[in-house]
Amino acid sequence: MTKILIIGGGGMIGQKLAHQLANTGWQGQPAEVTLYDVGFPDNCAPSSRRLVGSLTEDGAAAGLAATRPDIIFQLAAIVSGEAEQDFDKGWQVNMFAGWALLEALRAEHEASGGSYRPRVVFSSSIAVFGAPFPEKISDEFLVAPLTSYGAQKAVCELMLSDFSRKGFVDGVSIRLPTICVRPGKANKAASSFFSGIIREPLNGKEAILPVSDTVRHNHASPKSAVGFLSHAAALDTDLLGGRVSLNMPGVSCTVAEQIEALGEIAGANTVAFIRSVADPDVAKIVSGWPQDFDSARAAALGFTSETSFREIIQTYIDEDLGHS
Amino acid sequence: MTKILIIGGGGMIGQKLAHQLANTGWQGQPAEVTLYDVGFPDNCAPSSRRLVGSLTEDGAAAGLAATRPDIIFQLAAIVSGEAEQDFDKGWQVNMFAGWALLEALRAEHEASGGSYRPRVVFSSSIAVFGAPFPEKISDEFLVAPLTSYGAQKAVCELMLSDFSRKGFVDGVSIRLPTICVRPGKANKAASSFFSGIIREPLNGKEAILPVSDTVRHNHASPKSAVGFLSHAAALDTDLLGGRVSLNMPGVSCTVAEQIEALGEIAGANTVAFIRSVADPDVAKIVSGWPQDFDSARAAALGFTSETSFREIIQTYIDEDLGHS
Repeated sequence: MTKILIIGGGGMIGQKLAHQLANTGWQGQPAEVTLYDVGFPDNCAPSSRRLVGSLTEDGAAAGLAATRPDIIFQLAAIVSGEAEQDFDKGWQVNMFAGWALLEALRAEHEASGGSYRPRVVFSSSIAVFGAPFPEKISDEFLVAPLTSYGAQKAVCELMLSDFSRKGFVDGVSIRLPTICVRPGKANKAASSFFSGIIREPLNGKEAILPVSDTVRHNHASPKSAVGFLSHAAALDTDLLGGRVSLNMPGVSCTVAEQIEALGEIAGANTVAFIRSVADPDVAKIVSGWPQDFDSARAAALGFTSETSFREIIQTYIDEDLGHS
Repeated sequence: MTKILIIGGGGMIGQKLAHQLANTGWQGQPAEVTLYDVGFPDNCAPSSRRLVGSLTEDGAAAGLAATRPDIIFQLAAIVSGEAEQDFDKGWQVNMFAGWALLEALRAEHEASGGSYRPRVVFSSSIAVFGAPFPEKISDEFLVAPLTSYGAQKAVCELMLSDFSRKGFVDGVSIRLPTICVRPGKANKAASSFFSGIIREPLNGKEAILPVSDTVRHNHASPKSAVGFLSHAAALDTDLLGGRVSLNMPGVSCTVAEQIEALGEIAGANTVAFIRSVADPDVAKIVSGWPQDFDSARAAALGFTSETSFREIIQTYIDEDLGHS
């Protein structure tokens, strides 16, 4: 039975992935799924095992690696806004914990005489890129992050790439667009409002828009994110030619287009819940983020996402609205 | 008096830089120069202070940072071939020691109430790039190293960039081409032969060429490298727009063109000292390295190098031949 470890399994994406694995198994077969996180929601997805802990604790990575999972999803992170405010915590959690995990997996690889070489799927982010940008970011565009979060993700990508090149693990980094519409509460990610302006109005609550509606950004639904992760876990990594970091597809649109799509689906009364209150800190972070991608490699490798923001809203309505 | 710290000050480039500072000072004024390294050559350049140590030792970085140098040249590294053979040592020396230095400088920055913010010049490498390449690598080409050395350098660049963006230090990373002609003995760098095939024949000794003479590569002299470092130390970093990693200029030529230039300067009898003995390990590493750059940014910022391989050989003859 395939052993799957989801680090950050208590988070929003980890939970959606765990639900999917519980419902449909791994490639049609039941899987042994372990969720690892600092905590889990009350309505936690069913799994073989839940472990409470943090990779920043001594010995935590070694303990997880010793169970020799076949597939490891590394989703745990401090979000962008928090990493920007708390420099130490961001680097410790987002970078050094990632190093600890890779080192622990390498130790198991060596203890196994080289036969243990797990698939590691790392959730990176389009925050590895920094302005100024071309109109569309190509697969060969430089990584020049303008946030600590982006720098930490970029460093982890480089580490995973080198550990993979050496054959210690078999890694893929997927650079997620902003995930939208996130269910539940707002978080400290600077991108949180992109979900908030859709989610709160659909729940009859006021939403704050901290940036201009001309801001263009790239989005994919939580459902697409789970699809990216699953596809990356099953990917033939020989096809990557050593470049294991991949820009994921998504929907590029302006905030005005997001709001227009909301109006089409839910009407003007719903849109009226959105209130503009400029937040220069958020605007500054977001202005350094990518707007659009030519994600040709990901498409050629079979990654797919929504093609319109209406679809993204519909996914939220189908999967999450009224479910929590 | 400007306080200058050269980490890796016992190495070839560090020594040339120290000699230049001893001869001409810093911007026309005498400077207080500290050299830091695991050891120093017998004919060590004069300096205000020599310290024997390694940044990998506990407390070493804090001790250096406590002296609050105005300018820090971080040149210390395990070379590419050794980093490829000794994975642990490469990451510890090339990456974690760099982190320790930046953290120690941040502590001084904070202890000073924010007034201490040293210029840090980090010697990175074109090994941050990995094949396949366009004909000329632009300033916006992705970093995708194919060696541990390249990955470690790329990680340090990202760290230095983030510490600089936060205002803890004022950093510049310069991506050096292969430095040629290196005086002295061959080292464990996979690129060592590029110097060997010029240096050994000029000294009447046999040189081994481990790759095909069709291999194209990018070179600059030790004199140019010292020029890059000095220019980076005095650069107005506001001009960098947050992108603090710079591709340096150099001479792109094939091994055959290198040998042709040697023949023009020193004759066929000298060229006859070169013997081809294929080394697939070296050939594999070198095949993943860049061949040519469009280093437009560096040129606009005033960095200059030789423009022909003949000039590079002449620099070796003028500076080093018969001097050691």
